[in-house]
Amino acid sequence: MGSITRKIAVLGSTGSIGRQTLEVVRAFPQRFHIIGLAASKNLDLLSEQISEFQPRFAYFLGRETATPPDIGCEFLPLEEIARHPKVDIVVMATSGASGLLPTIAAVAAAKRVALANKEALVMAGESITREAKLSGAQILPVDSEHSAIWQCLKGEQQKATGIILTASGGPLLRCSPAQLGKVTVAQALKHPSWQMGRKVTIDSATLMNKGLEVIEAHWLFDMPFENIRVLIHPQSLIHSLVEFPDGSVKAQLSYPDMRLPIQYALGYPERLPNPELPRLDWDGLKSLTFEQPDFGKFPCLKLAIEAGKKGGTYPAVLSSADEVAVELFLSGRIKFNDIARLVAGALEQHQPIAQPILEEILAADAWAREKVAQLAGEDSSC
Amino acid sequence: MGSITRKIAVLGSTGSIGRQTLEVVRAFPQRFHIIGLAASKNLDLLSEQISEFQPRFAYFLGRETATPPDIGCEFLPLEEIARHPKVDIVVMATSGASGLLPTIAAVAAAKRVALANKEALVMAGESITREAKLSGAQILPVDSEHSAIWQCLKGEQQKATGIILTASGGPLLRCSPAQLGKVTVAQALKHPSWQMGRKVTIDSATLMNKGLEVIEAHWLFDMPFENIRVLIHPQSLIHSLVEFPDGSVKAQLSYPDMRLPIQYALGYPERLPNPELPRLDWDGLKSLTFEQPDFGKFPCLKLAIEAGKKGGTYPAVLSSADEVAVELFLSGRIKFNDIARLVAGALEQHQPIAQPILEEILAADAWAREKVAQLAGEDSSC
Repeated sequence: MGSITRKIAVLGSTGSIGRQTLEVVRAFPQRFHIIGLAASKNLDLLSEQISEFQPRFAYFLGRETATPPDIGCEFLPLEEIARHPKVDIVVMATSGASGLLPTIAAVAAAKRVALANKEALVMAGESITREAKLSGAQILPVDSEHSAIWQCLKGEQQKATGIILTASGGPLLRCSPAQLGKVTVAQALKHPSWQMGRKVTIDSATLMNKGLEVIEAHWLFDMPFENIRVLIHPQSLIHSLVEFPDGSVKAQLSYPDMRLPIQYALGYPERLPNPELPRLDWDGLKSLTFEQPDFGKFPCLKLAIEAGKKGGTYPAVLSSADEVAVELFLSGRIKFNDIARLVAGALEQHQPIAQPILEEILAADAWAREKVAQLAGEDSSC
Repeated sequence: MGSITRKIAVLGSTGSIGRQTLEVVRAFPQRFHIIGLAASKNLDLLSEQISEFQPRFAYFLGRETATPPDIGCEFLPLEEIARHPKVDIVVMATSGASGLLPTIAAVAAAKRVALANKEALVMAGESITREAKLSGAQILPVDSEHSAIWQCLKGEQQKATGIILTASGGPLLRCSPAQLGKVTVAQALKHPSWQMGRKVTIDSATLMNKGLEVIEAHWLFDMPFENIRVLIHPQSLIHSLVEFPDGSVKAQLSYPDMRLPIQYALGYPERLPNPELPRLDWDGLKSLTFEQPDFGKFPCLKLAIEAGKKGGTYPAVLSSADEVAVELFLSGRIKFNDIARLVAGALEQHQPIAQPILEEILAADAWAREKVAQLAGEDSSC
């Protein structure tokens, strides 16, 4: 980083992570400067953000049909912003496969990549981490669990021997299998501890989110799947734990608030004192509970871990099939349990490719989307 | 450290911490070499240890009356062992004020001092930490709580904003005030989670141990008393927590087993893989609970924190008064609640000296011992 003020491009600035990133930037105007903003849908909010932060570059997906305000910023393709020499940190705040190509562009350009878009690493973890080693790019996790692990690893000179990812269990943790069959969109979107975007909230309800995070942790921390565990921890205060060669374990705790992991990634290695972030209330701390995940009730978790272990194009199929299935669920066209069934169907029918190149990953992504649409269509035509 | 094999002197080798230190050394014969052993009472065990480890130096307090085996090791005074140029690490495994002078000698000689003897730092924290800064000595905590804090601070470049010391609550946590009045020695020695020496086990029952640890943490981590908290955590799995400027909190967890903090101090910064150390059982982890300490039922905790805040010779009086009171309790001459009463009495009558030199600390120590004996004698003569 040449300058004291870090120049930040936020890709996905109108989504949940994007807006919270801008809150952090607002809190530290001397430390962070927004140089790029990108959004795909919400032109009104993007226009407001452009007015406030006056970035040098912007991107809007629907630019052909809707014209953003002309206030002197240059409109560039996503990947060009991600790799632009003026950018220090790229915040990948998009969700789903749309984050893949910009992430690859940022990594190839040796950026600091603050990665909230877990799907990119799930789909192409092997090539992204290999490329980062070659270019010297730093992939800084923004997911709260991976930020927790990263914080616990700080200063440790030896590799961890195990990772324990915690999961709130989502809004449907206590539902019976019969109840899961009848879950409404509103119920699945009602997360007990985290306020997040719609895609990740549904993924939390199916535990697919935790499965994607297992794959993400595998790549971020070079950790064998056998040494990554998931524990349900409904209070969402311990965000993950790391085990070391001597058997000692470290954990990171905080209230569920994404601004903390965002700020940690932006300011790393410094911890910035942000009075707006909540402090743990030690008088109120009574009990932290843990339970084993129910793989039978939440088959997505198992599907994800198996796809991660198999590798190749399987994780890309998993991620993209899930993305389409979640969209179908959110639009009321399939039932909650169909998400896992459709993802499983796509994985079963997939002809995998080992050590895929980018084109093969993109082809697997396209195949999975089509396959899920087809499987869902067959259902509805019955 | 010049050599790869670290040369270790264990002062207090026949006590609980001393014996566990030797277990760790046995597990890593290539890494650690015992160069000195010292004990005050148990000649049989010391002789066995000398036969096994063949140290170059030894010390036995009762040498005038009992002769240790003549097997070629040189008998030296404690302080000479502590400062000997051949010694890399001094493990201060004694309990009570007897550790004060050897600790000062080791610190002045710029040793790595693995400090289990919290009383030394309680009595003379200001001068010991000042001297360590001057000499370059490293004081490495062996107490499980302080080791936890030290592990959480690893790699952090900024000062912590708060420390939360956990306490099992000891064997008498659930006793009513009336029951506390009738506690037997056997009951007070029955610690629910830790196997330790008699002095520290009684200190755990009164919570004086946690109070001494607050003072220890103040000096080890340069942390204002206002920012050190005590939380009762009966499972003894989280050994302490540290809060950082951004509100993030880190915790260290492990089964209660002193070999881990001992090994961490001996091997620092490396974490040695010791198959004999237990691993956390993630299938069995159900609940970690926390509660506020009851200062009314356990007045020693408050006495200690107040003495720490007042500073000067107060902490030395606290520590030495407690040492004598615990001995009186263990020998059946006073009741459990008398420990706090006698310590409070000594503190009340003490004429403090601010920023004391060593001689003044030793004088306060002697005064406190006499005062407690006198106060206890007055009681029994009633």
